[in-house]
Amino acid sequence: MKIAIDAMGGDYAPAEIVYGVIESAKKHQDVLFALVGDENKIKEHINELPKNITIHHTDEVIEVDEEPVRAVKKKKNSSIVVAAKLVKEKQAQAMITAGNTGAFMAAGLLVIGRLPGVARPALAPVFPSKGGKGTMVLDVGANMDAKPEYLLQHAILGSIYMNKMLGIQSPRVGLVNIGSEAGKGNELSKAAYQLLEQASINFVGNIEARDVMADKCDVLVCDGFTGNILLKTAEGVASTIFGTLKSEIKKSLIAKIGGFILLPTFKTLKGKLDYHEYGGAPLLGLNGACIKSHGSSDRRAIMNAIEQTMTFINNNTLEEMTRELTNRSEVVE
Amino acid sequence: MKIAIDAMGGDYAPAEIVYGVIESAKKHQDVLFALVGDENKIKEHINELPKNITIHHTDEVIEVDEEPVRAVKKKKNSSIVVAAKLVKEKQAQAMITAGNTGAFMAAGLLVIGRLPGVARPALAPVFPSKGGKGTMVLDVGANMDAKPEYLLQHAILGSIYMNKMLGIQSPRVGLVNIGSEAGKGNELSKAAYQLLEQASINFVGNIEARDVMADKCDVLVCDGFTGNILLKTAEGVASTIFGTLKSEIKKSLIAKIGGFILLPTFKTLKGKLDYHEYGGAPLLGLNGACIKSHGSSDRRAIMNAIEQTMTFINNNTLEEMTRELTNRSEVVE
Repeated sequence: MKIAIDAMGGDYAPAEIVYGVIESAKKHQDVLFALVGDENKIKEHINELPKNITIHHTDEVIEVDEEPVRAVKKKKNSSIVVAAKLVKEKQAQAMITAGNTGAFMAAGLLVIGRLPGVARPALAPVFPSKGGKGTMVLDVGANMDAKPEYLLQHAILGSIYMNKMLGIQSPRVGLVNIGSEAGKGNELSKAAYQLLEQASINFVGNIEARDVMADKCDVLVCDGFTGNILLKTAEGVASTIFGTLKSEIKKSLIAKIGGFILLPTFKTLKGKLDYHEYGGAPLLGLNGACIKSHGSSDRRAIMNAIEQTMTFINNNTLEEMTRELTNRSEVVE
Repeated sequence: MKIAIDAMGGDYAPAEIVYGVIESAKKHQDVLFALVGDENKIKEHINELPKNITIHHTDEVIEVDEEPVRAVKKKKNSSIVVAAKLVKEKQAQAMITAGNTGAFMAAGLLVIGRLPGVARPALAPVFPSKGGKGTMVLDVGANMDAKPEYLLQHAILGSIYMNKMLGIQSPRVGLVNIGSEAGKGNELSKAAYQLLEQASINFVGNIEARDVMADKCDVLVCDGFTGNILLKTAEGVASTIFGTLKSEIKKSLIAKIGGFILLPTFKTLKGKLDYHEYGGAPLLGLNGACIKSHGSSDRRAIMNAIEQTMTFINNNTLEEMTRELTNRSEVVE
C-alpha cells in the first residue's frame, strides 16, 4: 500500500505534515509513503529518512486566491497535482492533503477522475451527532448545482463509506429538507426524494437542518451549495457562541471563577462538536482514496488521516463502490 | 390605525395572545385592535373588553398537518384567513399571528396579495449580530425556488425595512454564498450577484454562512430553501451546544457549581443569540403589514410584535416599499 501526501498544503506545512508522516511511517513499516513537495523544505524537518518514505520533488505552488481549475491545469508541478498523478498512475492508492479545498477537488476530478457510474464526486465530512457515530454529509461543496441522480449516487457512496469505515450495517440515509413530510422542499429535493425512496438504500426520509446533529441518519445528502451553507452556519454559530461566552465570562470576577471551573467541560464540549475530530473529509466518487485533512492540521491530524486512509484501503471501500455503482440498475450516469 | 390579531395561533393561544393585546390596547388607546378567533374562548380570558378591541368570531381551525394552500382556500372562516381578509379589505392595516407559518404565508399571498413590483413575498426574520443591530435574512422559506430578480426585490424590501424600522441610513446588502469572492456559488447566486451589483443599493458582496452573525451586512438575501437551512442549522447547533453543555455540567458536583455561577452568563448569552428577541418576522412584499410572531409567543412577545407593527405603519414603510418598487427601472416583475 502506498499513500501520497501533499507536504506543502495546510497552515503548518511542511513541518507538521512531515512529522506526522514520519510518525506513521515508523508505526506502519509495511506501508509506503510518498511525500510530495519542495525537497529542500521537506528535508529541513527530517533527520533520517525512514526507508518507507520517498520524496517527490515539486517546485510550483498554488496560491490561496487562484482559481482552482485554472491553477490545477496550469501548475502541473504543484504538490497537489503531482500527488493526484501518483494516484492516477496507480503508483499510490490514496492521497491526503491539508491544502486548498478547491484545488484538491479540481485535482481529484481532472487528474484522478471519477468512478464509473458517478456523475460528480462529493466532498463528504462526517458531522458529530449526539450519541451517535456521526453523520456523513455529502456534498458540502464539490458541486454547486446538483441533479437528483447525483444525490442518489452520493447516498450510495455514503452508505458504503459508513458501512466499511464505521461498521454500520444498514446506514440510514436522509435528505436535507425544510420539513420532515414528503412533498416538501425545492424542485431538487422533491425529485431527489422520489428517487431515494425507490432505491434499494435505507432511506429514512427528509431531515430538517435543525436535526443535522441529532443522529437521525448516518448519511445525509444535499447539493453542494446547501451542504456548504449547513457546514459553515454550524461553524459560525458554534464560534459565535463560544466567542460570546468568553467575552461574557470576562465581564466579572465571579463569572471568571465559574468559567475557570467549567474549563474542562467547555473543552469536552468543543471536542464533541468539532467535526475535525471525526477525521478528514473524503472526496467520494473518485477512482482513488482522496482525503482532505483540515487546513489547521497538526501531526496528530495527519496521522489520523493516514489511519483513516488505511482503513479505507484495507476494507476495499473503493472496490465495493465500483461494484455497487456499476451493478445497480437505478444508477444512471 | 387598526391591527388584526390571530387569537387562535401559537402554543399559548388564545390566553397569552388575548392578554398581550389587552395590555397593548390599554397602553395605546388611539390604536384599534381586532381579535380574530373563537369568541367564547377569547372571552374566557377577558374581564372587561377595552373599547379599542373588537372581536371577530371564527369557528374553523387550520390544523398543523394540513397542507397550507389547500387549508387557506378551504377554511375561509379560520382565524388566520379572516385576519388576512381584514387587511385585504383595508379594515385593518396589519395582521399578526403566532400560528402556522405555512398557513400565514399562504393567507398573505392568496388573500392579501403582493405589492406591485414584487414577484414573491419573503419571510424575513432579523438574526442577531455581534455588536450590531441584527441582520435581516430574506427569504427563509416563502419561496423554495427563487429567481435572481426575486433576490433583488428582496434586497430592496429588506433595505427599506432596516432603514425605516432601525434607522440604518444605507443598509448594507449581502448575498449568501459559499465564498466571499465574486463568481463563486451556484447558478442562482452567480446571476443574483450580477443583478445586485448593478442595482442602486448598498451591495457589499457575498457573505459566507459562517459570517451570518458577524455584522457584515444589514440585509442578507438568498432563496427560501437556503434561508431555511441557515435558520434551522443555527437553531439546531445552538440547541445542541446548550443541551450538551447542560448534560456535561450535570456530570460532576464541581461542574454543577461552575454551572450555577455562570447561570446569569448563560442566560445573557441565550438572549443575545435568540433571534426571537429581535421581534416577529415580517412577510415582506405583501400589500399590508404582516408579522409572524414565534409559535411559543407569550403576552410579552405579542406586545413586542404590536410595537413592531405600529412602527412599521407609523413610518410609512409600506408606502415607501410601493414607491421604490414601482419607480425603480431595474425591478422587473
